[in-house]
Amino acid sequence: MPELRRDPISGEWVIIAGERAKRPKDFAGQSAGKDAGGPSTCPFCAGNESLTPPEVLAFRPPGSERDTPGWWVRVVPNKYPALAVEGDLNKTGLGMYDWMNGVGAHEVIVETPDHDSDLASLDTRQIEDVLWAYRARYLDLKKDPRLKYILFFRNHGQVAGASLSHPHSQLIATPMVPGEVAAELAGAKRYEGYRDRCVYCDILRQEANEGTRVVTENESFIALEPYASKYPFETWILPKEHGPSFAAISAPAQSEFAQILGETLRRIKVLLDDPPYNYMIHTAPCDSDDRPDFHWHLEIFPRLTIAAGFEMGTGIFINVTPPEVAAQYLREVNLTPDGRLMEEGAAVGDSDS
Amino acid sequence: MPELRRDPISGEWVIIAGERAKRPKDFAGQSAGKDAGGPSTCPFCAGNESLTPPEVLAFRPPGSERDTPGWWVRVVPNKYPALAVEGDLNKTGLGMYDWMNGVGAHEVIVETPDHDSDLASLDTRQIEDVLWAYRARYLDLKKDPRLKYILFFRNHGQVAGASLSHPHSQLIATPMVPGEVAAELAGAKRYEGYRDRCVYCDILRQEANEGTRVVTENESFIALEPYASKYPFETWILPKEHGPSFAAISAPAQSEFAQILGETLRRIKVLLDDPPYNYMIHTAPCDSDDRPDFHWHLEIFPRLTIAAGFEMGTGIFINVTPPEVAAQYLREVNLTPDGRLMEEGAAVGDSDS
Repeated sequence: MPELRRDPISGEWVIIAGERAKRPKDFAGQSAGKDAGGPSTCPFCAGNESLTPPEVLAFRPPGSERDTPGWWVRVVPNKYPALAVEGDLNKTGLGMYDWMNGVGAHEVIVETPDHDSDLASLDTRQIEDVLWAYRARYLDLKKDPRLKYILFFRNHGQVAGASLSHPHSQLIATPMVPGEVAAELAGAKRYEGYRDRCVYCDILRQEANEGTRVVTENESFIALEPYASKYPFETWILPKEHGPSFAAISAPAQSEFAQILGETLRRIKVLLDDPPYNYMIHTAPCDSDDRPDFHWHLEIFPRLTIAAGFEMGTGIFINVTPPEVAAQYLREVNLTPDGRLMEEGAAVGDSDS
Repeated sequence: MPELRRDPISGEWVIIAGERAKRPKDFAGQSAGKDAGGPSTCPFCAGNESLTPPEVLAFRPPGSERDTPGWWVRVVPNKYPALAVEGDLNKTGLGMYDWMNGVGAHEVIVETPDHDSDLASLDTRQIEDVLWAYRARYLDLKKDPRLKYILFFRNHGQVAGASLSHPHSQLIATPMVPGEVAAELAGAKRYEGYRDRCVYCDILRQEANEGTRVVTENESFIALEPYASKYPFETWILPKEHGPSFAAISAPAQSEFAQILGETLRRIKVLLDDPPYNYMIHTAPCDSDDRPDFHWHLEIFPRLTIAAGFEMGTGIFINVTPPEVAAQYLREVNLTPDGRLMEEGAAVGDSDS
């Protein structure tokens, strides 16, 4: 069973996943990827449902059997979970140190049965169903009082930590509010305490006025490069309407969220030649997803540069692409009027000319 | 000139290094490394002193000319600095955002004239001189009232962000105390406020008693795998004597610091086949390097796994190698009694048997 240990200085928790333990030689060459075998051995492909634990959710035609083909979105427990769903939460001290057993949840959202597809290439209706699957799992897991926070995230490409290439996202539910999340909530609250306004609403207003960091928008969402981008081409997707929880989204807004997420990922894919990236949904903790001072959103971090000693030692990132420049490049990617990919060779605008 | 921008939610600063700006296509293939040309084009090799800005410090024989060969440790300004040493510090607001110009210092400590060497392979006397060079630069830069913090760090290997393979460390001095540093100081202070003892002194005591996470020690230092290690084989080197600043080190302690740093890096190198790593010296800020509640130390992070969406979204790291296991492997590396490398093929202990 994984365990949670707390750093006595920072107060941050670490998951020690001893069951996944690696010996020193196992680290060599791990970047080779695990799914070189392709669809025949891929646990996320249709027909290979027996290679995963039983599904906890699937969108499939009426009458179709569990754990058989036919689904278009499927959610399964992670076979090698970072946190395990069984057992009560135990906490103890080990001398000066704090310890908890690794209770939580770790699930995989398989986004399509098509091994060689990609979230950016799916049609909006399919992306929307992936987002509905996120929401359904959120609402189900939120009932478990042991779970305090649920993070939805996506790792794309080996450099971004994806070990299987079949399109998928993940969720991990934790038995505490993680440090980064607590810090973000505290930052939003601090700003609101000082100005009596939501910091994200203020960002939306200033960015819409200035325009230089906006990538694209639709009726309910805006995609922008944040003023203090840590990563080149870091992109946030913010709902225009203030609200703490992504799970409270309306059906029309969900459709627009799917549209802008797909379009933004396509702009990044075309411009940067399908770069590795991570995205994460930032939403309020389970027990306070009605708190008025937070504003949920999604953050995309392309992994084009390496965080090294300076970033690790200071928390200050060095970003070689000003967000205004990044936004201009992303805006100039030519898509069809409904945000789809153009024919090959006609897609990248040339802001050098 | 680089600029500093503050994230309005987290309060964290980001360096936007527009002069280093990359166009989208420049990111592709950047892992190929810049110094494939070898020593003839390496700016850190003896004989190529004209390829760097003029040296700010060098250990060289009496009578030897500045910026000519003969040195054994040489410190030069970074040719592409993340922060620039010229100019006054200006701060302003841009609507809701905070801005500063990028004043600071960014220097390279060239650790040896030998292109193909490695810090771990240098003899203790040479490593000690590298550490004396750190200290000399610290004491000099500390006089500049614009500089609030000075980080010494080392990136080893491309995966850890090193773009030149010639052995070197770096320093970056910042015009504010970075967020990570402030958080660590606050954590140490919080612990001290609660227990009236230094958290690092308590760690030293508990780890020396338990022994399971200790890698090696000498009279003045201990090397250990921290209880809540974020990375597999994360290793800290802690001075046994409490003190806030590495710059206050005595001559005998400096020699022992060099010995344990070299030995620890050799253990990591042998066990993990010369892995990429970052190390950082954690020391108190310039204007408070006599504060009683901090305990300077060095942290080494091997880069064997990838921080992905979960780590980025929560700050919680998933570590697949428990520190007790890592410490045992590192202890079992066979070195000579004085901590040098054994003959080829005899170096790695086998804890599987």
